[in-house]
Amino acid sequence: MPRKIVIIGAHAAGVDAAAAARKTDRKAEITLMTKQKKPGYSPCGIPYVIGGQIPSFDDLVVFPPAYFRMMKLDLRLETTATGIDTEAKTVDVEKKGKAEKLEYDSLIITTGAYPFVPPIKGSEKQGVYVVRTIEDGQKINEALKTAKSAAVIGAGVIGLETAVAFVECGVKTTVAELLPYSLPAMLDKDMADVVHKMLEERGLRIIVGHGADEFLGKNKVTGISVAEETIPADLVVVATGVRANVELAKNAGIALGETRAIKVNTRMETNVKDVYAAGDCAESIHTVTKRPALPQLGTTAVKQAKVAGINAAGGYAVFQGVLGSAVTKLFDIEIGVTGLNEFFAGRAGLKTIAGTISSKTKADYYPGALPIRIKIVVEKESERVIGGQIIGGEAVTQRVNALSFAIQKQMTVRELAKADTAYAPPVNETWEPMILAAEIAIRKL
Amino acid sequence: MPRKIVIIGAHAAGVDAAAAARKTDRKAEITLMTKQKKPGYSPCGIPYVIGGQIPSFDDLVVFPPAYFRMMKLDLRLETTATGIDTEAKTVDVEKKGKAEKLEYDSLIITTGAYPFVPPIKGSEKQGVYVVRTIEDGQKINEALKTAKSAAVIGAGVIGLETAVAFVECGVKTTVAELLPYSLPAMLDKDMADVVHKMLEERGLRIIVGHGADEFLGKNKVTGISVAEETIPADLVVVATGVRANVELAKNAGIALGETRAIKVNTRMETNVKDVYAAGDCAESIHTVTKRPALPQLGTTAVKQAKVAGINAAGGYAVFQGVLGSAVTKLFDIEIGVTGLNEFFAGRAGLKTIAGTISSKTKADYYPGALPIRIKIVVEKESERVIGGQIIGGEAVTQRVNALSFAIQKQMTVRELAKADTAYAPPVNETWEPMILAAEIAIRKL
Repeated sequence: MPRKIVIIGAHAAGVDAAAAARKTDRKAEITLMTKQKKPGYSPCGIPYVIGGQIPSFDDLVVFPPAYFRMMKLDLRLETTATGIDTEAKTVDVEKKGKAEKLEYDSLIITTGAYPFVPPIKGSEKQGVYVVRTIEDGQKINEALKTAKSAAVIGAGVIGLETAVAFVECGVKTTVAELLPYSLPAMLDKDMADVVHKMLEERGLRIIVGHGADEFLGKNKVTGISVAEETIPADLVVVATGVRANVELAKNAGIALGETRAIKVNTRMETNVKDVYAAGDCAESIHTVTKRPALPQLGTTAVKQAKVAGINAAGGYAVFQGVLGSAVTKLFDIEIGVTGLNEFFAGRAGLKTIAGTISSKTKADYYPGALPIRIKIVVEKESERVIGGQIIGGEAVTQRVNALSFAIQKQMTVRELAKADTAYAPPVNETWEPMILAAEIAIRKL
Repeated sequence: MPRKIVIIGAHAAGVDAAAAARKTDRKAEITLMTKQKKPGYSPCGIPYVIGGQIPSFDDLVVFPPAYFRMMKLDLRLETTATGIDTEAKTVDVEKKGKAEKLEYDSLIITTGAYPFVPPIKGSEKQGVYVVRTIEDGQKINEALKTAKSAAVIGAGVIGLETAVAFVECGVKTTVAELLPYSLPAMLDKDMADVVHKMLEERGLRIIVGHGADEFLGKNKVTGISVAEETIPADLVVVATGVRANVELAKNAGIALGETRAIKVNTRMETNVKDVYAAGDCAESIHTVTKRPALPQLGTTAVKQAKVAGINAAGGYAVFQGVLGSAVTKLFDIEIGVTGLNEFFAGRAGLKTIAGTISSKTKADYYPGALPIRIKIVVEKESERVIGGQIIGGEAVTQRVNALSFAIQKQMTVRELAKADTAYAPPVNETWEPMILAAEIAIRKL
């Protein structure tokens, strides 16, 4: 009898889990499902379709129907999993009112996350959107056609990416962030303030320290009220974070962790045998704090999914842990982070020192050198690098990766200050800025 | 009595040594000297002035006269050190026929390297140049004004950067390389062949496996003879590597190492007390092989110089070792390397496996994604990453740095395959190519 693998979800985690399972067991019957009309697309690209950099939402489909046929995956679209019976090893699914019971030997839960909309008065009004699915993106694009102004609630990555897309479409846009600075999940205040200023110089207004008190207008939204100011807005996007979709798992007796996402071991197996979880609904262990973490990033999703898929198909793989390495591009500014910032390190009980430097991305004399600002966070006793934050005109992402490797391998700040780095006038300064930031940190030890 | 520090050399290593010495001892009398008219410029920029990306050779001066005044450094231009007496602790110098004896408490030798010109018939002819100093660059620029064709001997970094600059100036250019492939000090043949093809597609002819037999012409060069072919050339650049300037040190009884450069300990001190060396004339220890190495890179020079300067001024600093991390940009192609390639690993007696992948620098669906090719070299028994080679349209340098950090911290290829990496559609693929290359290598373990 071929092994039956059922995967609830068919996006980043679901498809990568299915692919890994297929490569591990060529004979398994693999079924995966999504409530949506399109599977396997990249939601990270949605703001860039809105902003016009990517021509069409169809371009975001990374896995076309032919892929699922080639990999012999039974893909169910517009299909909802309504219940899991972990004793009988079955999943109840429903498609357009028609119910079915799927048997499994291994189950992988990749139910993802949903946008959390805080209880703001008027949030039921027409013209209030979230950004999660292609359908969301299409609705926003339609609304943008006639919009003169917009408001975005939340200055996280998704909120700012969407707001920047609006500005690039010529729509006057204001962002309202409840917390005291932008990108609060990524940056410390000193770095966030630099981003804030750069974004305002490029035409985006950001109000920090105040959420929206109310969405104004009759049936359709016409503005928002923030700190007693009325801001006109023909559309409003709420981007105040996502929450793991765990109801299905919870109802089936699958344990959640302290992050309120599904608890897993290093093989991505839940507390129930043969049930795995991966992606935005599944916890990870943070490489520095060794505590549960929930970065909810595409990179984490596909890596967890690969491990879950291999194990669900009878193979052996372990997941290594996360550093929350992330990057975004807002206008011409790249912003990246890895590991802990000073704020979160403090919350984890760690004492830190930091080194921050401003430099350039090419030799000072080479035309087109762009500014770059790097902050290195160091744990005081071990002198280990535990985090990095970078804002720059280019070459941010791979510096984030370099610092991620350093943190993973417990590099001390003194080792970083002496690391061997590459230079040529068109691509870097002689003294790599990461090294200069490390030197500044060392002086504070 | 203030400490007397004499530095022979006033370029990358000399100036950085002087700066580090000054920061360590604010009262020291620091003298540095160069045979040249200009100190403290970046020779790495010369090909980019020739190619027209940088407007003027003057732009390459990183340390202007005001810098030396501000740092209270006694800078001697057009001054040659003719002898060192390590017993009396003096250096004989000569400027325009006028001799002087300088006393020192600490001496730092940063005499650099000179271009090695192989004994090719006709190499004394007019129109045959090397690329080392601004004066060399100026002569080449002058010759280029009337040149229709050019030849470059040597397909190393300097040779190719110069040849590419010639093509960008509209001059038909041929490179002749004695070894069987381009960039032999950086790349393995498989990667070099990729570069070769890309350069030829962009209009540069490269002949490998054949050096120049003769430089043709009467007084002035008119062409070169390579493998019985006559190649017309109104100017010829010889770029067949550099050799450490060690005569002065050798004559003073300072020991050389197996690389034929000056032997130093980790404090950059030679076998003679109070005499330090740094830069292209000084050996390093390779982080992987633990054997003497001579990368002769600007980055190594400034890092060694800093250590030498601190120690010469009574401080304490150690140099960590080198991985030879280097990068160049040829036309629109970035090429980088760190650690050992398979060829040099083999010569060091190491058994290796490698993983090579072609990918893109942005999400496949994001406009403007450029190709990138990454080769990871792994030592077979320890499974450690020991080298990386990268060819790409962008984002090469910082991947080189990331792999350098990984090698320094003895990351295994299995750890690399699970590393936490950053992604956003405009700046990377979801699966970082370094990780995919690691996965390919793992299959061969």
